Amino acid sequence: MRTGAVMDRRMGESSEIGEQMHQFAKELYPICRSITGDGIRKTLAKIGERIPLTISEVPTGTTVFDWQVPKEWNIRDAYIKNLHGERVVDFKRSNLHVVSYSAPVHATFSLSNLRPHLHTLPDHPDWIPYRTSYYREDWGFCLSHNQLLALQDADYDVCIDSSLEAGSLTYGECYLAGQSENEVLISCHACHPSLANDNLSGLTVATTMASVLAGRDRRYSYRFLFIPGTIGAITWLARNADTARQIRHGLVLTCVGDAGGFHYKKSRRGDAEVDRAMEHVLRHSGETAEILEFSPYGYDERQYCSPGFNLPVGCLMRSTWGTFPEYHTSADNLDFIHPGQLARTLGVCLSVCDVLEENRFYVNQNPFCEPQLGKRGLYRSTGGESIDVEIHARLWVLNLSDGEHSLLDIADRSGLPFNTILDAAELLKASGLITEKA
Amino acid sequence: MRTGAVMDRRMGESSEIGEQMHQFAKELYPICRSITGDGIRKTLAKIGERIPLTISEVPTGTTVFDWQVPKEWNIRDAYIKNLHGERVVDFKRSNLHVVSYSAPVHATFSLSNLRPHLHTLPDHPDWIPYRTSYYREDWGFCLSHNQLLALQDADYDVCIDSSLEAGSLTYGECYLAGQSENEVLISCHACHPSLANDNLSGLTVATTMASVLAGRDRRYSYRFLFIPGTIGAITWLARNADTARQIRHGLVLTCVGDAGGFHYKKSRRGDAEVDRAMEHVLRHSGETAEILEFSPYGYDERQYCSPGFNLPVGCLMRSTWGTFPEYHTSADNLDFIHPGQLARTLGVCLSVCDVLEENRFYVNQNPFCEPQLGKRGLYRSTGGESIDVEIHARLWVLNLSDGEHSLLDIADRSGLPFNTILDAAELLKASGLITEKA
Amino acid sequence: MRTGAVMDRRMGESSEIGEQMHQFAKELYPICRSITGDGIRKTLAKIGERIPLTISEVPTGTTVFDWQVPKEWNIRDAYIKNLHGERVVDFKRSNLHVVSYSAPVHATFSLSNLRPHLHTLPDHPDWIPYRTSYYREDWGFCLSHNQLLALQDADYDVCIDSSLEAGSLTYGECYLAGQSENEVLISCHACHPSLANDNLSGLTVATTMASVLAGRDRRYSYRFLFIPGTIGAITWLARNADTARQIRHGLVLTCVGDAGGFHYKKSRRGDAEVDRAMEHVLRHSGETAEILEFSPYGYDERQYCSPGFNLPVGCLMRSTWGTFPEYHTSADNLDFIHPGQLARTLGVCLSVCDVLEENRFYVNQNPFCEPQLGKRGLYRSTGGESIDVEIHARLWVLNLSDGEHSLLDIADRSGLPFNTILDAAELLKASGLITEKA
Repeated sequence: MRTGAVMDRRMGESSEIGEQMHQFAKELYPICRSITGDGIRKTLAKIGERIPLTISEVPTGTTVFDWQVPKEWNIRDAYIKNLHGERVVDFKRSNLHVVSYSAPVHATFSLSNLRPHLHTLPDHPDWIPYRTSYYREDWGFCLSHNQLLALQDADYDVCIDSSLEAGSLTYGECYLAGQSENEVLISCHACHPSLANDNLSGLTVATTMASVLAGRDRRYSYRFLFIPGTIGAITWLARNADTARQIRHGLVLTCVGDAGGFHYKKSRRGDAEVDRAMEHVLRHSGETAEILEFSPYGYDERQYCSPGFNLPVGCLMRSTWGTFPEYHTSADNLDFIHPGQLARTLGVCLSVCDVLEENRFYVNQNPFCEPQLGKRGLYRSTGGESIDVEIHARLWVLNLSDGEHSLLDIADRSGLPFNTILDAAELLKASGLITEKA
Repeated sequence: MRTGAVMDRRMGESSEIGEQMHQFAKELYPICRSITGDGIRKTLAKIGERIPLTISEVPTGTTVFDWQVPKEWNIRDAYIKNLHGERVVDFKRSNLHVVSYSAPVHATFSLSNLRPHLHTLPDHPDWIPYRTSYYREDWGFCLSHNQLLALQDADYDVCIDSSLEAGSLTYGECYLAGQSENEVLISCHACHPSLANDNLSGLTVATTMASVLAGRDRRYSYRFLFIPGTIGAITWLARNADTARQIRHGLVLTCVGDAGGFHYKKSRRGDAEVDRAMEHVLRHSGETAEILEFSPYGYDERQYCSPGFNLPVGCLMRSTWGTFPEYHTSADNLDFIHPGQLARTLGVCLSVCDVLEENRFYVNQNPFCEPQLGKRGLYRSTGGESIDVEIHARLWVLNLSDGEHSLLDIADRSGLPFNTILDAAELLKASGLITEKA
Repeated sequence: MRTGAVMDRRMGESSEIGEQMHQFAKELYPICRSITGDGIRKTLAKIGERIPLTISEVPTGTTVFDWQVPKEWNIRDAYIKNLHGERVVDFKRSNLHVVSYSAPVHATFSLSNLRPHLHTLPDHPDWIPYRTSYYREDWGFCLSHNQLLALQDADYDVCIDSSLEAGSLTYGECYLAGQSENEVLISCHACHPSLANDNLSGLTVATTMASVLAGRDRRYSYRFLFIPGTIGAITWLARNADTARQIRHGLVLTCVGDAGGFHYKKSRRGDAEVDRAMEHVLRHSGETAEILEFSPYGYDERQYCSPGFNLPVGCLMRSTWGTFPEYHTSADNLDFIHPGQLARTLGVCLSVCDVLEENRFYVNQNPFCEPQLGKRGLYRSTGGESIDVEIHARLWVLNLSDGEHSLLDIADRSGLPFNTILDAAELLKASGLITEKA
């Protein structure tokens, strides 16, 4: 399998695949997702049209480690009407207008009594903030600061037509069996409403990645999780502790479509193979990229990297959450993510998979002195001139293939791209000069 | 116990404690100390008025490892008189005028015969140097270069009314028992005459530190040594080899009152807990500070860090010996040390004690995924906004409390101050989420 | 043995030894060397006039690991004559004119048929390139690009009066037995024709080094190899696998006479004692020097550091091969190497031998506190002043002589030159304060 290289090349020619991902994001954008309810069900249904997806429903009240699966939340409509019956805040115009998990309410409020339930962003007066109240029953509206300023001191007809009842938590899983039961985990949260970078970008890249990998031979098995953030990861881990032990490498994908350079946050281990593979791929990608140390705040790597699991799962982002002003606002819309950026993120992810798939240990069968490459047609014929990078790569693979250095080790030590080292290894293997370590 | 934080805050309000230390230094300044004799006895008596002090007298001739306790030296008077009977050099004006440990002499000398016994500093013509001759019997005078230039070529009446006889070496020890027999050692040399930074600064900070710690609960026992340099440390170690094995952390304090930034010289081990605690405290102190690698020249850490003991003892200084021109001259006087600097040194030392006292290993009782902090009131209630540093600290403590990371490890890895991590740990411990490692 | 220091001093006074080396290079320069044949035999004979040399002849066809000893190549004459019978290219003017290992040829060629057999350097139109065709039977001429441009489109009488027949591969070995059978290997390739830096510089430095070391007591045995590149090292290793196991330290010497600063390429191990010794010597040498990581392309360290052997052999160069335009051209002539540079290279090599010879582990016999150096005359007598570097060195040796730190470790940690540490150790040993570790 070498999909990353293929993808990179195809993407160089056109960003068709990027356009497709952006189009898919556009399709998902209007759905009012939350950590439970019909929004996430509809989202998973659309993903399931593209890749094989198993849907799980976990009943409200189920204990998952220290937590319980919450009530299911659904919403039909919500508004604030003025004296004239005009909807001055209307859920139908943006699902961000309602604090996620708002309890139902229908009553008349004076502005001053309503005010504590209104959230705005004074520094960005045209943007609607995104707020939630999952674990404390409450209700509220988010609106632009300019909307708030326009509200007259009067009574308002306030309605949130929601339900918060026993139901279930829903998540989707795409499992692609490989030669080995050892797994690569790709996880992304699917619980945010109309926010594009956070995290329709992750959903569309993961879906496309699964679609590409489904068509390839795979050494590892791959598991893609489309889950509500935090409670979803906790629920999955609680129900799949044995499976979790099969995870050899993992990535959380989030905020991967904006115009920024890459940020990769390492796993808690800090030197996991996926950490080293990602660093290698990003270093040779030609993209700006920054490697961040692990920290216990962020996305679902918080759960995968909790001390009891300590899984080798890192988090790939472009701009990091909380550092861009559009984060968790209505400005994180479809214009904020770009087809080319989605495509290049996909390329990086597939290249990392290539490294993981092909990273092996070899043993030089002629370990005493160099073998004579020339008689095998693997060396230049005229002495006295310099040699090509391909021959350098062969010498590196031969020199370090002592069973102690993986191809990724050799790539890193030589400074050469993994694919160049892999090409050399495949040639040397075909010549019988190296064999895979037993 | 959390004295450093308290001290820092108090010192922010006033430098009263700094003024008290400076006043104490002023009281000790005129005493003519040496490595033995009544000068150090008087000094220890004054320290003993402030903290509980055990005085040891070790007889001249006692073998202490490769050394022997020297004769006791005392001095009553010394001068150089000119033809007119005027004291052109007078011990009563500065005890630096006599080379420490000068043998008695009373005779008439021509200037040329006297000259080899006269020490000056031509580059600082107004300053008197400080010189000693402990281990080779000799005598001499130290004077300003201008004094020397003013001497006429004539005969002089030279007198050193000293005695160098069998007696004893004196040192003082303040022991504060804690819950554990494991000890923290604070050591400072008390053998220099009228020199303020070297080392009345160390004496006054150590005395005040003992006084503060005496009033607190202590996990560790604390031992403060007020000893003559080199021979004092050697004597103490020779007589207390078993006790030395109880020392878990230690600091030599010297030159800690001048206007310079901090210098901390690490123990021979280089990664001892006291080294890491001091580096942490200095990094978060807001003071300029430089960390120096261990070297076998300096103060009594030379003895504590000799290879047979290899104790985890570092050395805290402000300006380092030998690097400031006032070092070992009459210019190292009471104006050279500052109340605020003494107070901030005390604050750093107490903060290091806080870290050592409170640095423990905890074990997360909910290691699989994060525990639900919200239901315990330990998390923000509205999602979508950023979290406070206090919550960050809780997540860090939970994530790294696997029994392998101490609170200091967690503080260093998170970049957060130890006290923030400690606050989080105490809260989590109170909630039953972590327990101390058995 | 402390030859490096002596050499350095002598070289400081005059570069007589450098002139001698340059003179020897001049003597060797005209010989037409290749990887086999009379050229290398003559060269070894001249080396054998200076140092005891054992010559080995290994028959053509002998299997050496994955290789076979090639046919022996000899050449008597070669030329390209124009219509007027003038030699427009003449082997007698430069032995670089013939591609090394050219098969015999004598025929008339049109320029266009001859052209594929002609090698030039268009970017340096006055220089003749150096080319070989060891392992593919071929023939060719190297000439300056201006010579090529002057050739008319006509027929040429082309002659290479060479032989390529069963014979043998020749190499020379100088073995200096020491107290131990453990060996230091010095290896240099002797197969290049009229090229001065690459590698008459290595040959002359190695020869002089052997000559100097022959007159000294030696802890290690020393083995100097003068061999054809690649096939020579492979042949020696194949025939001396047991001896190779005795090699404790090794250096390949090449390109060590040009005007550039030093480059030391570390062994595959990267932290071998020879790597650390060379880094230490270069750091204190006052010469510009760069340390390079190991890579599997270069000179015969490729074979010594193949994974089956993994010998601690580094490579000392001044300018590195391939990075200077004169490399492998007629411009790498006697003017390109300098007596002073050869002499300073010799000094560095001998200093590294000094370190290897004298690097030992000692054990402080007074490990508890410092011993009293003063009573042994090893300390200053008047206290209060700073101490000399010699006393610093004694304190360092005493402090770190716990059986775990070698003198080189102590030198590196203290930042002091090895010789200063060695002097201190010898003095302390003579005083009985340290003894060599059993």
